[in-house]
Amino acid sequence: MNMQLNETHDPALRSWVASANTAGTDFPIQNLPFCVFRRAGSDEAYRGGVAIGDQIVDLGRLGSALSGVSAEARSAAALAAQPTLNALMDAGPAAWSALRLALSHLLRGDAAPRPELLVAQAAAEYALPAQIGDYTDFYTSIHHATAVGKLFRPDNPLLPNYKWVPIGYHGRSSTIGVSGQRFHRPRGQTRGASETEPVFGPSKRLDYEMEVGIFVGGGNAGGAPIAAADAERHVFGLCLLNDWSARDLQAWEYQPLGPFLAKNFATTISPWIVTLEALAPYRAPWTRDAADPQPLPYLDYPALRDSGGFDVELEVLLQTAAMRNAGMAPVRISLSNFRHSYWTVAQLMAHHTVNGCVLRAGDLLGSGTQSGPDAAEAGSLLELSGGGKQPLTLPNGEQRVFLEDGDTIEMRGWASRDGRPRIGFGAVSGTVLAPR
Amino acid sequence: MNMQLNETHDPALRSWVASANTAGTDFPIQNLPFCVFRRAGSDEAYRGGVAIGDQIVDLGRLGSALSGVSAEARSAAALAAQPTLNALMDAGPAAWSALRLALSHLLRGDAAPRPELLVAQAAAEYALPAQIGDYTDFYTSIHHATAVGKLFRPDNPLLPNYKWVPIGYHGRSSTIGVSGQRFHRPRGQTRGASETEPVFGPSKRLDYEMEVGIFVGGGNAGGAPIAAADAERHVFGLCLLNDWSARDLQAWEYQPLGPFLAKNFATTISPWIVTLEALAPYRAPWTRDAADPQPLPYLDYPALRDSGGFDVELEVLLQTAAMRNAGMAPVRISLSNFRHSYWTVAQLMAHHTVNGCVLRAGDLLGSGTQSGPDAAEAGSLLELSGGGKQPLTLPNGEQRVFLEDGDTIEMRGWASRDGRPRIGFGAVSGTVLAPR
Repeated sequence: MNMQLNETHDPALRSWVASANTAGTDFPIQNLPFCVFRRAGSDEAYRGGVAIGDQIVDLGRLGSALSGVSAEARSAAALAAQPTLNALMDAGPAAWSALRLALSHLLRGDAAPRPELLVAQAAAEYALPAQIGDYTDFYTSIHHATAVGKLFRPDNPLLPNYKWVPIGYHGRSSTIGVSGQRFHRPRGQTRGASETEPVFGPSKRLDYEMEVGIFVGGGNAGGAPIAAADAERHVFGLCLLNDWSARDLQAWEYQPLGPFLAKNFATTISPWIVTLEALAPYRAPWTRDAADPQPLPYLDYPALRDSGGFDVELEVLLQTAAMRNAGMAPVRISLSNFRHSYWTVAQLMAHHTVNGCVLRAGDLLGSGTQSGPDAAEAGSLLELSGGGKQPLTLPNGEQRVFLEDGDTIEMRGWASRDGRPRIGFGAVSGTVLAPR
Repeated sequence: MNMQLNETHDPALRSWVASANTAGTDFPIQNLPFCVFRRAGSDEAYRGGVAIGDQIVDLGRLGSALSGVSAEARSAAALAAQPTLNALMDAGPAAWSALRLALSHLLRGDAAPRPELLVAQAAAEYALPAQIGDYTDFYTSIHHATAVGKLFRPDNPLLPNYKWVPIGYHGRSSTIGVSGQRFHRPRGQTRGASETEPVFGPSKRLDYEMEVGIFVGGGNAGGAPIAAADAERHVFGLCLLNDWSARDLQAWEYQPLGPFLAKNFATTISPWIVTLEALAPYRAPWTRDAADPQPLPYLDYPALRDSGGFDVELEVLLQTAAMRNAGMAPVRISLSNFRHSYWTVAQLMAHHTVNGCVLRAGDLLGSGTQSGPDAAEAGSLLELSGGGKQPLTLPNGEQRVFLEDGDTIEMRGWASRDGRPRIGFGAVSGTVLAPR
């Protein structure tokens, strides 16, 4: 949809929530990302919230605060007060936009402060923002596909379909968790390169994958394909996604039907969903090599080349147990950008539905690992360590080729440009526990 | 669990529902499979039902009819009255067994007839029996894997992992429909063997796959692996499943992450779920060639070799539009048996969870295409037609290599042995419509 900028994007806007006006906050008034939350440790019902500075606007308590706004915004706010955002997601872009505008007005510096609507983020706990009916993971970074392809198939790294087909597969929704997820190192079958028989045991090549998550808004009940030009109207927003992966399980199991136990033990997403409207100032051109094929007509649309992409920085940080015990903060191990994606969000939506497949509000798509063209932009340890051969040395002298028990991976994302306010994604964090 | 036979299996039992006592019925009193139904064309709430002869016991109206039975059975009946069976599935095998026993008593020939509890199957319409959180499709027939492997990889038909790993992948839950599903022929990218670029259009190699569906009962919240020896206690029952497949889409898209648009446009299941308790008299030995590897310990369990399998006949019938217009009944095109499966249901459950993956009540597993060792036992047209090269000739002179618009595929299943009552699965039917 590539919306036009409107008053909610005005860089001059400030909020009566002081922390929203500080340099470096992820959540200025121009952002307004959604979550589902409650007070930590309480037995309150989970409900929708919107980030502003270091606070959350409690969408379950707006009540009279919205008395002056449009009926559409009030209706959307009521949907957002539910324990999942599925109903809000299903309501469509006009509803999302009306609620965003109402919240922007409510929170502006010239509005009456309403501190009773706020809960401090430090006092909150989060749930998955939606009941995720189906989760699909794509493979949109040609840099990742080429690097991983070299390791799995040295003679044939990038398969002939890659530049034609937005490759994707179905993932597991039951094990998707929100930031803070802790999971046991998976066990399974692996087979050494020189062995004839597999062995069973804990994965020795446990990895993360830095991805962008895409929450489907209104779906296509009945299965009518979603046209690429219309596809962003079916996207509620983006989040951060860590697609934990056991490389050794994957190498042994993935032929011929794809990854299964190598992926389905855990997937972690950030609590915050940044709307496409908030990202409107941060669209990026879609590029591919001049020699690459042009997209088939169902994957082409007017806005594709100028602004099909998103300019979102994607950072990965690692904190080992030893670092945590010594009070050392997580350290950056890579920085990439979503604009390198070979396929756009709209293309993924169009491809997914072109055969009649049904998307439902709350469904989640993963972008696939977002590795950039440079080695330091690799979105997984598999790539950063050259297939497990070149250890990373951390500031405290520890080394890593793959993840060890106790390691925490944190991912952050943000859009920032031209002196505009930073549109941040917050963080997604997850920790590897010892095998059961 | 391989339950012992009990009074509900007594071949001498007869019902006051006369149609349940006729030779050849799928639904004698020894079966009692579950569905979710309502009166066709009504706006009644869907609720659970149990088949008896040509009738359905309305589990939403049992009320006082269960006044004399165990509290556990009454509690299970209340769960079964809901619009999905997820809560009943989650209640576990003791609850399922108590309800079965109570229904067996209620329906016996020496009990007072209660016709007010019945709805004729001819007057009913069905819904999916559960909200399916995740759907996984396996690949358990070595005969199918070998035959298909020959077509996709002539030099390498059966991959080295096949005899070690119960190969599976995640499918799409949003497009699973109940018998009677009609869907448009999918469109997508395909590439001819001699071409360098793909083309876009309707699939020309549309196929069915004859599978058994496995409904998960109580899951493993928290992700503690389910031991193979305990796994059948987590299985609510079995149904019939048609995994519609677009072979030409699959051949182009499936590397390296597996089938996606080739499968996710439609999957059709039978309305009836036959419980493992009903199938207890029809267990079958698990066999593999003497030279094949033994299962790894997590895939082994005491009952595996003697009775790990199920002796269930699986029949596929085809009715073309021309046959339907001429009043011709569907014609059998193959007959196989679930006992040929290389991996057992318990092994699938153990494998799926050994890495910490979470199964939830109502999740669905597909067995994979159940082709037997003989060519006439092939569970797909791809195999029956030798990869599309040898057409089948139908009784009216029509020929088929793959499905054409208007074709209806019907699958039936039943267990029948030793003069025991036939435990039938009813039918799953689905029809191909022209592309959009």
